[in-house]
Amino acid sequence: MSKTNAGNFFEDFTVGQVLEHATPRTVTEGDRALYGAIYPTRFSIPSSAAFAASVGLDPHPVEELIAFHVAFGKTVPDVSLNAVANLGYAELRFHRPVLPGDTLSTRSEVIGLKQNSNGKSGVVYVRSTATNQRGEVAIDWVRWVMVHKRDQSLPAPETVVPELAPAVEPADLVIPEGLDFTGYDVVAAGEPHRFDDYEVGEKIDHVDGVTLTDSEHQQATRLWQNTAKVHFNVEARPDGNRL
Amino acid sequence: MSKTNAGNFFEDFTVGQVLEHATPRTVTEGDRALYGAIYPTRFSIPSSAAFAASVGLDPHPVEELIAFHVAFGKTVPDVSLNAVANLGYAELRFHRPVLPGDTLSTRSEVIGLKQNSNGKSGVVYVRSTATNQRGEVAIDWVRWVMVHKRDQSLPAPETVVPELAPAVEPADLVIPEGLDFTGYDVVAAGEPHRFDDYEVGEKIDHVDGVTLTDSEHQQATRLWQNTAKVHFNVEARPDGNRL
Amino acid sequence: MSKTNAGNFFEDFTVGQVLEHATPRTVTEGDRALYGAIYPTRFSIPSSAAFAASVGLDPHPVEELIAFHVAFGKTVPDVSLNAVANLGYAELRFHRPVLPGDTLSTRSEVIGLKQNSNGKSGVVYVRSTATNQRGEVAIDWVRWVMVHKRDQSLPAPETVVPELAPAVEPADLVIPEGLDFTGYDVVAAGEPHRFDDYEVGEKIDHVDGVTLTDSEHQQATRLWQNTAKVHFNVEARPDGNRL
Repeated sequence: MSKTNAGNFFEDFTVGQVLEHATPRTVTEGDRALYGAIYPTRFSIPSSAAFAASVGLDPHPVEELIAFHVAFGKTVPDVSLNAVANLGYAELRFHRPVLPGDTLSTRSEVIGLKQNSNGKSGVVYVRSTATNQRGEVAIDWVRWVMVHKRDQSLPAPETVVPELAPAVEPADLVIPEGLDFTGYDVVAAGEPHRFDDYEVGEKIDHVDGVTLTDSEHQQATRLWQNTAKVHFNVEARPDGNRL
Repeated sequence: MSKTNAGNFFEDFTVGQVLEHATPRTVTEGDRALYGAIYPTRFSIPSSAAFAASVGLDPHPVEELIAFHVAFGKTVPDVSLNAVANLGYAELRFHRPVLPGDTLSTRSEVIGLKQNSNGKSGVVYVRSTATNQRGEVAIDWVRWVMVHKRDQSLPAPETVVPELAPAVEPADLVIPEGLDFTGYDVVAAGEPHRFDDYEVGEKIDHVDGVTLTDSEHQQATRLWQNTAKVHFNVEARPDGNRL
Repeated sequence: MSKTNAGNFFEDFTVGQVLEHATPRTVTEGDRALYGAIYPTRFSIPSSAAFAASVGLDPHPVEELIAFHVAFGKTVPDVSLNAVANLGYAELRFHRPVLPGDTLSTRSEVIGLKQNSNGKSGVVYVRSTATNQRGEVAIDWVRWVMVHKRDQSLPAPETVVPELAPAVEPADLVIPEGLDFTGYDVVAAGEPHRFDDYEVGEKIDHVDGVTLTDSEHQQATRLWQNTAKVHFNVEARPDGNRL
């Protein structure tokens, strides 16, 4: 039996299947620094422990996308090693702040399957849940991704397409415990505009373009333990079939 | 009103103006590691907590230039987003060690203005002060930078050129509290030469050249939250007018 | 006297000589994050503090190779600044886990010398020992490396080639204190194969190729304070004589 992990193909998934993803990962201050070196982030709460404490968040949580990248990376070896294309996300919610020292584990449930008409691949829908070392939910989300079939002669599974919310309702969003913006320092935050200043349809020209090199791309995916070959191996790209 | 931050132009500065820079930033062990990955530093005090403690510095301070880069980065969005050229620094002093967990904020006062004879730009002098989360001064310095005018038809402001010390007097340097070199381990420090071994005019050939790639340049400027476009966006460079 | 550190040449080494390497270095969570960004590591113990604690390792040790890279880097300025080629390692043992906050120092003893027949260089054998801030041995190993002579007219030293074990005996390996795999979570570890599943001669195709750029190479060597010029300076490479 080969010890090479070839990953799951479309026919390996069944609706209701639960995947316990391996390699729990502890988030640290090192992740905060590297995230800041790779992405040009300047939000006051994750940038400053003092600012975070002033709005009720102490100890100092890391940026939500650090936690998401870590939690998402866990799912790749089981869900999308044979992906053709990453298609979408829905119903993502951050349930509680993630602190340096927290360990995230992720599990996914297959909630939908739809084979493509060409018989070569299909769409897999998973709902993934990341929990911390106390078993509390940190993040959950739905993702759908197109995955190759290993054996194209196999029959298509029954099509199940989950009904997904077009948007997360404001009432369903989770406000971090203790968050209190009454003493919010607008000057330190560096953003003069508040909720009321924005209009539907307004366009904002974000002038601060950022150039990323291959090195930063690869460092990010390794840091998040995302094992999709296209991110790591330049030889995996010329086939033209992968993202 | 556009929400794009176009930054200040020469005519937006007035002598005596105080700029409270946004986005306080907490320094961490992650910064120490990344600084070491980008710059080839091997000073014993910031490299080793045990060495630092042996000379009276416990907890373990980060390298002074980490603190300076962080503190300086704060000033860019308000002072030099429209810079033509960075011209100089003076009177820089490190007032106390910066420790992992310390949060730095920076404010600047405009202390001089001098429009260029071509009427297209001018030199802005600022004195910047970085304080920690207890309001104690960590670093202060003067910087002058050439900044574009937005509207070249505006009249020149009164010229004010601050008188700056040609060098910081030894008596004005701040020795960190508790620093004690009586037990200094010369072998562990890795540098056999002491103050008395150097002569004015002596030349030293630093043979250890270092190549930096675009990736490291960009990671450094993002890490320090330096928002000058020339550092991030390769498309900002070909105009030839920017650093 | 020049203050440039030209490094030791072959004729500068004598059997029995002890080199106390400079610049002790404290390992941090920043090193763990950067190691993960540069190398695609996914071992559960260094990845997860919770997993490590579940097998008896608490606080959370860093990956053994982080400690080795740091400890090895210390030896370069004294041993291999003038290396022609890095030849081999033997008898390497990890004696105890290295934790964030531990400071490593390294000393080496010259245990062998053999001049090459061309008279231009020779092989230096050193046994290096890295200790933590309590003086406990963390890692030791033997390395041999070919080093240039400065003065080819000097006579060859007596040849001493140390007898090295072809492999570290299992009985000589050091099991970390407290390690207990009775509750080992195979699913979280992500590796279904155990010791009994492997056979001598078995071949495994590791399909996850990784591309490294110059930037990552240089960041790694700076992070580990490895001062060999070939790692830092592209101008040091075209001579074709160095690794």
